[in-house]
Amino acid sequence: MAYALYYWTGIQGRGEFVRLALEEAGVAYRDVAREVGDNAILPFLEGRKIAHVPFAPPFLQVGRRLIGQTANILQFLGARHGLAPRNEAGRLWTHQLQLTIADWVAEAHDTHHPIAASLYYEDQRREAKRLANNPRGDRYLVGARLTYADLSLFQTIDGLRYAFPKAMRRARRKYRRVHALHAGVQERPRIAEYLASPRRLPFNEQGIFRHYAELDPELDRGLDD
Amino acid sequence: MAYALYYWTGIQGRGEFVRLALEEAGVAYRDVAREVGDNAILPFLEGRKIAHVPFAPPFLQVGRRLIGQTANILQFLGARHGLAPRNEAGRLWTHQLQLTIADWVAEAHDTHHPIAASLYYEDQRREAKRLANNPRGDRYLVGARLTYADLSLFQTIDGLRYAFPKAMRRARRKYRRVHALHAGVQERPRIAEYLASPRRLPFNEQGIFRHYAELDPELDRGLDD
Repeated sequence: MAYALYYWTGIQGRGEFVRLALEEAGVAYRDVAREVGDNAILPFLEGRKIAHVPFAPPFLQVGRRLIGQTANILQFLGARHGLAPRNEAGRLWTHQLQLTIADWVAEAHDTHHPIAASLYYEDQRREAKRLANNPRGDRYLVGARLTYADLSLFQTIDGLRYAFPKAMRRARRKYRRVHALHAGVQERPRIAEYLASPRRLPFNEQGIFRHYAELDPELDRGLDD
Repeated sequence: MAYALYYWTGIQGRGEFVRLALEEAGVAYRDVAREVGDNAILPFLEGRKIAHVPFAPPFLQVGRRLIGQTANILQFLGARHGLAPRNEAGRLWTHQLQLTIADWVAEAHDTHHPIAASLYYEDQRREAKRLANNPRGDRYLVGARLTYADLSLFQTIDGLRYAFPKAMRRARRKYRRVHALHAGVQERPRIAEYLASPRRLPFNEQGIFRHYAELDPELDRGLDD
């Protein structure tokens, strides 16, 4: 099955959550706008002669089908490529986690003003608790195998580390399981190969996760630890 | 199958999207916090001895299972109660629409400042186009039968009419199909019965859709029509 991913060039953005799943699945895909430019995206959004018009990138073309909304694409890929449990309860739970991570990402995206970094701490706490509560061990969010939700959590932590390096460094010991998951995903052979390749764009100040030094102050240790 | 819905009392909020699906499906459900108070929600969020801890209400208890995230709950109910197509492509498309409506709702929720009402016009245009593009007719978003996405579009339009009565009145002729869908859902026997019952909370200024008269000015007709 040939996949074609459509996402704006120049930023990782929401497209990156889909790329990580495609890379981990080890399937071939075209990253169309990066081959031929952002203009390739526009006709789809205008929706002439397309039944399922996406609202915005990312969207994925699979044969004659077009699938939009990041979490929806991941649900589709997860079922096809062993990145989600096969049973209904496990599938729903994985998707629930993905939607919660999406809310977190939207929150991070909105935060281009000096809101307390404690926001991110809270959200890390939630994921850390989930890892601790997983009856199959604390390596993955769901069960004993990697799901697309783990890849998305990796990406979120990676982005937050870029945006708030100091605050996130302080959080490492506290949210040990979350940062161990980040390390574990980073070391998976396909992901490691991907991250080292030119296919992985660097973070920058146009994306979801932006680094503004003034929003990431050095804190007195006593406040945080 | 006995359903128990958990959502904060006093507002329709995101819980209402789930209620509409339960009401249209004609299944019995408990609305737990409205019976016994918001305190019933807290132990679940704290997550003691719960495998799948929800991040926030609404969540749905189905036997021993707990399902969270509005769109995820609707996907579950849609499959069980004929509120979504049975084939994979149709299911994914319905879910994609639901996630897009959720983005719209989040946008409306964030708008407690005088952003251009044109925002809502744009989003209505998108849904209107979708109705126009449905090869099975313009009554429903997906195929020739009601899905949970139609119920959610109804709720969003209903909320926007409460929040921006003047702007939405001006939009009626322009987005005829969207407003016809709203009318069609409103007249379905189970929904009509529900809306007239005390189970339907009124909109208010604590919910997602809030009416602030100063954000809904009378406009010169020429500007808008």
